[in-house]
Amino acid sequence: MRSELGYSTTDRVFVRGKDLCAELMGHVDLGTMSFMHLTGRMPQSGEARVFNALALTLIEHGMTPSAIAARMTYAGAPESMQAAVAAGLCGLGSVFVGSSESAAALLREALSDSDDPRSLDERAAAIVAEARRHQRQIPGIGHPIHRPVDPRTVRLFEIASESGFSGRYVEMMRAIHRAVERDKGRPITLNATGAIGALCCELDLPAAACRGIAVIARAIGLVGHLLEEARSPLAVDLWLQTDRQVSVRPAALD
Amino acid sequence: MRSELGYSTTDRVFVRGKDLCAELMGHVDLGTMSFMHLTGRMPQSGEARVFNALALTLIEHGMTPSAIAARMTYAGAPESMQAAVAAGLCGLGSVFVGSSESAAALLREALSDSDDPRSLDERAAAIVAEARRHQRQIPGIGHPIHRPVDPRTVRLFEIASESGFSGRYVEMMRAIHRAVERDKGRPITLNATGAIGALCCELDLPAAACRGIAVIARAIGLVGHLLEEARSPLAVDLWLQTDRQVSVRPAALD
Amino acid sequence: MRSELGYSTTDRVFVRGKDLCAELMGHVDLGTMSFMHLTGRMPQSGEARVFNALALTLIEHGMTPSAIAARMTYAGAPESMQAAVAAGLCGLGSVFVGSSESAAALLREALSDSDDPRSLDERAAAIVAEARRHQRQIPGIGHPIHRPVDPRTVRLFEIASESGFSGRYVEMMRAIHRAVERDKGRPITLNATGAIGALCCELDLPAAACRGIAVIARAIGLVGHLLEEARSPLAVDLWLQTDRQVSVRPAALD
Amino acid sequence: MRSELGYSTTDRVFVRGKDLCAELMGHVDLGTMSFMHLTGRMPQSGEARVFNALALTLIEHGMTPSAIAARMTYAGAPESMQAAVAAGLCGLGSVFVGSSESAAALLREALSDSDDPRSLDERAAAIVAEARRHQRQIPGIGHPIHRPVDPRTVRLFEIASESGFSGRYVEMMRAIHRAVERDKGRPITLNATGAIGALCCELDLPAAACRGIAVIARAIGLVGHLLEEARSPLAVDLWLQTDRQVSVRPAALD
Repeated sequence: MRSELGYSTTDRVFVRGKDLCAELMGHVDLGTMSFMHLTGRMPQSGEARVFNALALTLIEHGMTPSAIAARMTYAGAPESMQAAVAAGLCGLGSVFVGSSESAAALLREALSDSDDPRSLDERAAAIVAEARRHQRQIPGIGHPIHRPVDPRTVRLFEIASESGFSGRYVEMMRAIHRAVERDKGRPITLNATGAIGALCCELDLPAAACRGIAVIARAIGLVGHLLEEARSPLAVDLWLQTDRQVSVRPAALD
Repeated sequence: MRSELGYSTTDRVFVRGKDLCAELMGHVDLGTMSFMHLTGRMPQSGEARVFNALALTLIEHGMTPSAIAARMTYAGAPESMQAAVAAGLCGLGSVFVGSSESAAALLREALSDSDDPRSLDERAAAIVAEARRHQRQIPGIGHPIHRPVDPRTVRLFEIASESGFSGRYVEMMRAIHRAVERDKGRPITLNATGAIGALCCELDLPAAACRGIAVIARAIGLVGHLLEEARSPLAVDLWLQTDRQVSVRPAALD
Repeated sequence: MRSELGYSTTDRVFVRGKDLCAELMGHVDLGTMSFMHLTGRMPQSGEARVFNALALTLIEHGMTPSAIAARMTYAGAPESMQAAVAAGLCGLGSVFVGSSESAAALLREALSDSDDPRSLDERAAAIVAEARRHQRQIPGIGHPIHRPVDPRTVRLFEIASESGFSGRYVEMMRAIHRAVERDKGRPITLNATGAIGALCCELDLPAAACRGIAVIARAIGLVGHLLEEARSPLAVDLWLQTDRQVSVRPAALD
Repeated sequence: MRSELGYSTTDRVFVRGKDLCAELMGHVDLGTMSFMHLTGRMPQSGEARVFNALALTLIEHGMTPSAIAARMTYAGAPESMQAAVAAGLCGLGSVFVGSSESAAALLREALSDSDDPRSLDERAAAIVAEARRHQRQIPGIGHPIHRPVDPRTVRLFEIASESGFSGRYVEMMRAIHRAVERDKGRPITLNATGAIGALCCELDLPAAACRGIAVIARAIGLVGHLLEEARSPLAVDLWLQTDRQVSVRPAALD
């Protein structure tokens, strides 16, 4: 059993082998530090810019299920803000957040065989045909509000390009997007989770890091929600309204 | 019921009234964004530097109870990294993390009366005497490893000073520290949570934000632990060793 | 480090010193087993009846904040029902559930001095006067719906009485209730958390067990909610409605 | 949006259409109530006995990962027992608890075609061959300690048989067990999760209820652990020992 993440002596603290006080505090921002903690190496400046942008994308999305869960929890246990954030994080699973992880996995798989003679568009067409055959959704495609363009995707790809991190994974994701549109015969959104999946691959982050970045970003967003809930509570009103609307009186009471 | 945190239209996403894609992504780092999300205003550059340093301080402390809880959870449910982070956050309560919040509250209280004619040292002496009378601990004082100096405190105060955010709350915290040392008649550590409490006051963050920053920082740290656990697992070994050492055979088996 | 809760050998499993398969499974119900696991001793049959009734009281209260949090979490991570229950439990803190624990503590304190010459009504009057002086609420008193009588309190006290567990703590709780009514000059509810606090004392359960029983009962209730959510989902609709009602468009969009 | 679980009026509380105070409290035990809350119908007495036994089986297994996570959390936030239970529940995922759910799904699938002309042993052999071909584990088979017999399986099947709930799903599970043994050419354990999966099918519980029962049972077990942790703490010692053993000094310190 060994862990190489952190260590303290009487007068120094080390994080991943770096002296926290001398080398990190005051020198690097929170995104750079997060990249370093997740990967074990300092990012180049372009990498840090892309990573910071990725994380920013996911911080806040309004009154999401995860924000509602956190606020409901805080209403019952305001002495435990940490548990309210925890409650909000528990729902970042397969439905709302998992798709960036799935997109990353799909892209890695699509580009795993360096001897594959097919063009990216040919591979994309095969992926889409396969998904159609199994009635599977392609991760990173579609959005209920941002149609036909997700502005976060545009911006993420722009930043990646400016920073020198727009490579084969981004190309592959775009090819898959084109193939889906051809298959459906209409415009469809390449959403932010698709872009994030591609950029996690470009940064060579481990697969699980996609979800990790989402968890970090949402933790920040949830703290924002809870500070607002502390200033201007809405959970109790929402609860009372919901209970009234939803609960069904038993027949015995009619 | 209203929330002013976030809002989306077809082609734009707003976070606290700012256009996420145009004004934030690619322009600000994760610490600056976090400050903005928690307070509703963009930090000045000195503030962003202090805030980033605060958050960095708390990310990683080795194999803490919170890291152990997260790894144990991940071992049972590797498909739910978010729930493992949540489990790790749940323990950031009164014992290990709450003291920065208590320190901030103590400092605000100590400086709440602007007409108080006493010097900071006189007020500090009164606070220490009161705590002694009620056998209460002073938050932010003492450390099991970093003795007699916590290097993180030194560095945080240095950064605050360089950035123009070393004001009356830092002075008050130092005065309390001196008063405790006089009271005990020996050197004792002014620890990082005391420094963080003081700097949260200097940045004029709401009281609950102290714990919020800790939660954000530890979420980052926990993701680092879980990525390490995925690469090189230790939870199952730790479990088996613990169960063997700890569980007591019933008398019936002797 | 030692734990006396459980132990396994090749062909037997022990829980608190009892042989799970031979002595417990098929012989005792879940409430009896819970009592045994929490206290280390088998309940008498009257105790088991009171304990089962206590636990039943708290299982289900409609679409509470905790149920909403659990359902929101399940909507995002249906592969992790356990994390949705966890999210729902996180809010069982000081506001909604803590009062039975506080009532138990108040009753133990009120009856701690066996030499106290005052009658229960005199002690109750002193408690109410003290609470009024510090503007503190008395735990276990008041209810928004069940006015002026909480039917669960009536039933719990009835079961306790039939089972031989209506003793001095129940008397003390009733005396406090009378004192509050005299103080306010109007009827006010003695609610279920007050009754539960009193009965936990009658069963001689440790203080923390009050909250423990609530956690167990709510875990059962939350599983019921999640099975309903799986059959007939409402979380996503509730989310969309909430986001629409609550989120405020930034001025820039007007 | 509608929920049929619970409803309150001024003087009555309904749970799944039954009057809580008049029909349930004092009349039914916690296992019976849980069955009723999960399924919407009162169990026959045999069903209640099987259900109680199922739930009892899973309450306590010594110092498991989930118990360690809960205790670590409690050490940091003793004011939030509910969050410590939540942390412990978060790890009841695919690795340790999911197998009863998988076993139930396998059995339902195996018996879904009532026109299947093959014997149970023939179907079992086909299932085992298929699993071998895809290198998949069969759920409910194998155990590190209880070899070659899990005493809980024996007892569960005995109770089911006595209660009139040993039907085709139990037979099918036994047939699969025999087929695995034939395939491996040696005895191998039919473990408790396999038995539980089969009995959940016999009771006609919805698929997700398997995990739900485990969550309920473990919530009870975790409360037991936390009450022990409150009486006789071990988490901090375990933490300090772990941190010392596990954390690796950076090379800079050698």
